[in-house]
Amino acid sequence: MEVNTNYASLAESYLFANIAHKVAAYKAANPDADIIRMGIGDVTRPLTPAVIRALHSAVNEMGEAETFRGYGPEQGYDFLRSAIVQHDYEPRGVKMDADEVFISDGAKSDLGNIGDILSTDCVMAVPDPVYPVYVDTNIMAGRKIVLLPCTAENGFVPQLPTEHVDVIYLCSPNNPTGVALTKSQLQTWVDFALAHEALILFDSAYEAYIESDDVPHSIYECSGAKRCAIEFRSFSKTAGFTGLRCGYTIVPKTLCVKGAESNMLNRYWVRRQTTKFNGVPYIVQRAAEAVLSPEGWDEQMANVNIYKQNAKLLKSAFEQKGLMAFGGDHSPYVWVRTPNAMSSWEYFDLLLDRYHLVVTPGAGFGTCGEGWIRLTGFASPESTRAAIERLTLS
Amino acid sequence: MEVNTNYASLAESYLFANIAHKVAAYKAANPDADIIRMGIGDVTRPLTPAVIRALHSAVNEMGEAETFRGYGPEQGYDFLRSAIVQHDYEPRGVKMDADEVFISDGAKSDLGNIGDILSTDCVMAVPDPVYPVYVDTNIMAGRKIVLLPCTAENGFVPQLPTEHVDVIYLCSPNNPTGVALTKSQLQTWVDFALAHEALILFDSAYEAYIESDDVPHSIYECSGAKRCAIEFRSFSKTAGFTGLRCGYTIVPKTLCVKGAESNMLNRYWVRRQTTKFNGVPYIVQRAAEAVLSPEGWDEQMANVNIYKQNAKLLKSAFEQKGLMAFGGDHSPYVWVRTPNAMSSWEYFDLLLDRYHLVVTPGAGFGTCGEGWIRLTGFASPESTRAAIERLTLS
Repeated sequence: MEVNTNYASLAESYLFANIAHKVAAYKAANPDADIIRMGIGDVTRPLTPAVIRALHSAVNEMGEAETFRGYGPEQGYDFLRSAIVQHDYEPRGVKMDADEVFISDGAKSDLGNIGDILSTDCVMAVPDPVYPVYVDTNIMAGRKIVLLPCTAENGFVPQLPTEHVDVIYLCSPNNPTGVALTKSQLQTWVDFALAHEALILFDSAYEAYIESDDVPHSIYECSGAKRCAIEFRSFSKTAGFTGLRCGYTIVPKTLCVKGAESNMLNRYWVRRQTTKFNGVPYIVQRAAEAVLSPEGWDEQMANVNIYKQNAKLLKSAFEQKGLMAFGGDHSPYVWVRTPNAMSSWEYFDLLLDRYHLVVTPGAGFGTCGEGWIRLTGFASPESTRAAIERLTLS
Repeated sequence: MEVNTNYASLAESYLFANIAHKVAAYKAANPDADIIRMGIGDVTRPLTPAVIRALHSAVNEMGEAETFRGYGPEQGYDFLRSAIVQHDYEPRGVKMDADEVFISDGAKSDLGNIGDILSTDCVMAVPDPVYPVYVDTNIMAGRKIVLLPCTAENGFVPQLPTEHVDVIYLCSPNNPTGVALTKSQLQTWVDFALAHEALILFDSAYEAYIESDDVPHSIYECSGAKRCAIEFRSFSKTAGFTGLRCGYTIVPKTLCVKGAESNMLNRYWVRRQTTKFNGVPYIVQRAAEAVLSPEGWDEQMANVNIYKQNAKLLKSAFEQKGLMAFGGDHSPYVWVRTPNAMSSWEYFDLLLDRYHLVVTPGAGFGTCGEGWIRLTGFASPESTRAAIERLTLS
């Protein structure tokens, strides 16, 4: 018996453990400090009334023989797949069939598992800094990774690679930088992928935060993208589903990249999901359906606006301190350059010590994240205002 | 871009599609036929009151800011991991730490994903007939598979392989045959694995159906198994969670098979799950906890007993027709030899045509399943009795 030796090549994942350790130590030494956590990438507002009603109703169905549901379709119930097509794609002029929509327990799972249907010989282009799942899942599979450096100089917009790549990860609006690609910037990537027969894996988990018509919610708003892109979406940050677990992935039947005949990737993903997955709980799919109802959507956007307002205020506060900042416009994330060429962890320590604020050191997201920190708008408006007072009054 | 070419080696999965097609065609030609479905491996009884109460309560928590839960631990909440240790292992004299228990969205997912941490060079021993997931997931990974033929002659108990294998799948009580391994039979496999430094993947999704003290519920009741076995369990058939989705996998820290130093597989599985999975919904974990409460467990066993009684009656009915049958004792499944050397599909057609009964042709579970059919006790007692009347009165 041999293990998967690629696992030995993984860097240890210390980022959030280190943060927790440092905060705990500070708290022990300063028991009266009122610590405000702006680092965590998790929502804080409860599920909204429309979602709660849908959950209770579906739970009741599961308790009666006449309405009980056992195994559902692994790819998701038609009611949710169709609702997604109608809510997320049709209004943007994107034609999508329900059998191109795959319901899952979250974008993280699908982003991790999509590699199952790709060759381990694929060369993967990954922006830096980045959501660590892109890198780690490909190290596990033994794939070659080409990093695409994102810096203040290029506005944290990934630049086209100069070497051969087979698969390209893009995340817009971005985690951790908060930067959103404009339609023309994204079209450049689609054109590149079509020209080079590459596959784009497009993570749009934060699309609900987009404010400008110039920023596409879906990569399929770009011409030709249904021939070269898989899109990953999530109810986590849109509707507070981080603890309820539901996302969805679009695998177009028209995908036609090198090495994959027409409809092959859609068929392979059906096979992967029906073999290694058993679908999302019925009650959760009913909750997701409620998110997309007119009333449910209004409730979600009210929460999203609160998070965005928090992010804007945070960005402004750091800019007033003379620091360069990205994000905050189409995103719950704010990405701030450390002052005086401090390292990410040095500034983390300073903010904790002086203001009792917890942020995320950008170095945890990749080499190009060094010298930056990430803040989130997910704390309460009260905590966010308190944090800003501490920052600006001192 | 290249796809995973192993997918081209997968046999098309026609079994249940073929069944559905044949049943639909029969129904169209015979619109008045009262068709009884005994083929489906899905529960029919609703979630029990204790589970429904736990779900409503947890849903309410998710709707209030004070009790809302976002991201949980990927490996599951401690309340459920601890409850499993106390309910499922301590009473059987098995010492288990909570961090050896990994909560997941179902045994199918974990059985499919466990290969992520194993080398693709591993040779896999798989009983035949078998739950198709064992075979298909390893074809996807490009692994060599050694089939272990199970037949009436060996009582459908897999025999030790004569060639080298690295990993061994065992399922007891078995799907599809319903045969359960005795403690001494299972100990033989554990001893073999220890002697050959092989890893056993033990699927005990049907352990709640066991009736005899001589049949272990957990492989860890066998001496030495915590050094050589991973165990997969599920709430699906125990508590009707097929549509709610919760299972768990035990990866002992003491696993010490060839090529894997102590605690390596546990650490690797932590890394796999934290990287490619985001945990089971909080509300579902509370429901699973309720299953293991004294009241909840009594409710589940009442349902399990109904399914088992159905299976026993079905087995008896076929035996009275002079047919050889396995299972039904520790299992919701009954495995019946076709009469007159008919093929699985021929007998399927006969049962549909003559008695309006739908079963599952054994050939769909592997070569050694040819000449057998699988029935389940999951239909209602009324439907089961009606089916038996048709079988015995004609």
